[in-house]
Amino acid sequence: MDIKNRTKAMKLAAPILAATTLEQRNEALANIAKELEKQKDAIFAANKIDLDEAAKNNIAASIVKRLKFDDVKLRDAIQGIKDLINLPDPLGKVLLKRELDKDFVLTKVSVPLGVIGVIFEARPDALVQISSLCLKSGNCAILKGGKETTNTNRTLFEIIKNAASASGLPDNCLLQAEAHSEIDELLSCDESVDLLIPRGSNSFVRYIMENTKIPVMGHSSGICHIYVDEFFDLKKSIPVIVDSKIQYAAACNAVETILFNRKIDKNYIKAIAQALIDANVKLRGSRDIAEVLGNEFDVEVMHDDEFGTEYNDLIVSLKFVSDINEAVTHINTYGSHHTDCILTEDKDRAAYFTTMVDSASVYVNASTRFADGFRYGFGAEVGISTGKIHARGPVGLDGLITYKYKLEGDGEIVADYASGEKKFHHKDL
Amino acid sequence: MDIKNRTKAMKLAAPILAATTLEQRNEALANIAKELEKQKDAIFAANKIDLDEAAKNNIAASIVKRLKFDDVKLRDAIQGIKDLINLPDPLGKVLLKRELDKDFVLTKVSVPLGVIGVIFEARPDALVQISSLCLKSGNCAILKGGKETTNTNRTLFEIIKNAASASGLPDNCLLQAEAHSEIDELLSCDESVDLLIPRGSNSFVRYIMENTKIPVMGHSSGICHIYVDEFFDLKKSIPVIVDSKIQYAAACNAVETILFNRKIDKNYIKAIAQALIDANVKLRGSRDIAEVLGNEFDVEVMHDDEFGTEYNDLIVSLKFVSDINEAVTHINTYGSHHTDCILTEDKDRAAYFTTMVDSASVYVNASTRFADGFRYGFGAEVGISTGKIHARGPVGLDGLITYKYKLEGDGEIVADYASGEKKFHHKDL
Repeated sequence: MDIKNRTKAMKLAAPILAATTLEQRNEALANIAKELEKQKDAIFAANKIDLDEAAKNNIAASIVKRLKFDDVKLRDAIQGIKDLINLPDPLGKVLLKRELDKDFVLTKVSVPLGVIGVIFEARPDALVQISSLCLKSGNCAILKGGKETTNTNRTLFEIIKNAASASGLPDNCLLQAEAHSEIDELLSCDESVDLLIPRGSNSFVRYIMENTKIPVMGHSSGICHIYVDEFFDLKKSIPVIVDSKIQYAAACNAVETILFNRKIDKNYIKAIAQALIDANVKLRGSRDIAEVLGNEFDVEVMHDDEFGTEYNDLIVSLKFVSDINEAVTHINTYGSHHTDCILTEDKDRAAYFTTMVDSASVYVNASTRFADGFRYGFGAEVGISTGKIHARGPVGLDGLITYKYKLEGDGEIVADYASGEKKFHHKDL
Repeated sequence: MDIKNRTKAMKLAAPILAATTLEQRNEALANIAKELEKQKDAIFAANKIDLDEAAKNNIAASIVKRLKFDDVKLRDAIQGIKDLINLPDPLGKVLLKRELDKDFVLTKVSVPLGVIGVIFEARPDALVQISSLCLKSGNCAILKGGKETTNTNRTLFEIIKNAASASGLPDNCLLQAEAHSEIDELLSCDESVDLLIPRGSNSFVRYIMENTKIPVMGHSSGICHIYVDEFFDLKKSIPVIVDSKIQYAAACNAVETILFNRKIDKNYIKAIAQALIDANVKLRGSRDIAEVLGNEFDVEVMHDDEFGTEYNDLIVSLKFVSDINEAVTHINTYGSHHTDCILTEDKDRAAYFTTMVDSASVYVNASTRFADGFRYGFGAEVGISTGKIHARGPVGLDGLITYKYKLEGDGEIVADYASGEKKFHHKDL
């Protein structure tokens, strides 16, 4: 069967998974954890085939590191499932209970989205994490992993799917897509798939966003800023700037541009530049910044239109702004609405900045690297969204949930209320 | 300036509107209400031009009825603004307040989406309602109304925009698009526009949904069902069925298909059919229904693939199903996930139906016509969404809102937590 028909069948199975109890879903997760442990030799054997293939094809070391699935990664993946079991049920939460009229009760209750497609990079742990997040939240999932992990993914998928079925979850709740051509097919399944979550390179995510009518949750880029206000504390700020850039430079929440208020003492700017250079960060910047820093710092002069660049590397852009308003405008124009920070000791400016910057996360005196579901205490992270619709910023299990309205009557009709014979009393219970 | 550049300018003005207080926004709304009353002669004069034009062009009577803007409609529109003023502030709600570590506080707070594009039918009251909903929720709005109301809309827009500016709201917070060609231009403004709300015919809404990367909220069709279970109460059910069909047949929440459990006594089915015919409803149905009803009822036999039809008229489709599961599958396959109802006295079947049917509103023994923001007690209705992402079902002001995370630190860096030197304590405040 092709992807289109398989997702149609999945769509019809989705309400059955949605109707399962927390106990059933947690039991399935526990069974998956048990089977992954029990069948680890088969997993490692499959992973060896992928690793041998990668060696043969001279795959980059950074990718090989990701696709390797060893004892440590399996243990972490299993621990992730156990943590998920301990999270409360995201389903069946009563979000509103209102009597429209006597004994005529409207209930708004949380339910799964239904069918979620996840397209992810060549990391076997991602397959385990994503399938367990979807099952915990009662969602059917279509999984498409990177081609470099084909064998590992196939083995992991079979174990997970069989363990879920053995625990009584519907057979159709998980589906694996393997061929790259199936991605385009999946993108056309807007009648059956409720949400797509693409992970991977910026260009890949952008391709997905531009080629489907299915809602997409994610981020194609993370262009994060730090604005250094004139009333900042140098000693406190240097570690924040350095951490934001180097703690994990390839992450979407690493800082890419530092904006300096023009009134800042030049020696303070030099101290920050020195700290970045000491941390092996290459400096780029507008001409006036290069002039202030002078020959002792090797600043590559850049053009204004380059400020939308995401380096994902130990490189940072520097720029002067005249005031906080210019900083806000720069960030709202060149940024990706991900995470932006102000360094200041002035509480009013801090409040102004966090109000005016149109980003998912807005910080005062803290590293941009904190933008993360685990650090926010969500227990599980589905991804980070730079969109504003549905879920924004780091997204926990809530991002896989919607709601429905249930109305229980005893023969009520609208004509009685339209004529004025009856009246709504809208009493929250 | 063209739409693209004007929406870009609006995007930069959006945070200024977002930062206004409830008092400022309510004052602007009060001023708009006052000016509409004061300048009503100009409004009626402009409306007369549109009406004369419509008469000249032989516009259908149903459209003329909508585009006519008289004392009654103006009074209702002004009352709508006053009701909106009395609603609580949707902005600045603290949705989460969590100490990640000592004195390191994360706050999740409600904020406007930013820039909203609304494309609506030829109804001047829609312009008043939409612009005031957007201003109450701190959103900038681009308004494009039907061409038959060009003169009325222009006058209303000028009054509303001037009143908003006079009250101190940013000049760029409202924008009117007039030419039809500007719709396609608006659809391409995905970098500046956060949400599109199209209203109007199914084909028009579908066109919008299929031709933009901007998120769209709305519904292209409302194919609502009533499933008559074998354990239903005939006397209670007939008014519900009739009300669902005829109380306003052109509405998206009117019923289009009635599914009968095969075990129902034929005389009961005939009683329902008779009640529909007495209400001037034309019956269509599958062959077996036509045979049961016999010659005394004029049932037009229809094919299975016609069950996805939205009549928007006094016509209804009838079909037999073997059991509740076949009813659920039919609804999830042919429906539009809008509003569906079961008629039953069996509480378990009612619960099963509301769980398994994948629609925004699922009812027991009540008319489908109740699916409406005002009837749900939302105070204001932005629209009805059949999508699951962001807002679902009848949507109040909440549908124009998102949130941002604010994190206030004192120099915290991620390296300290990654090394284990510091630990998150995630304490909700």
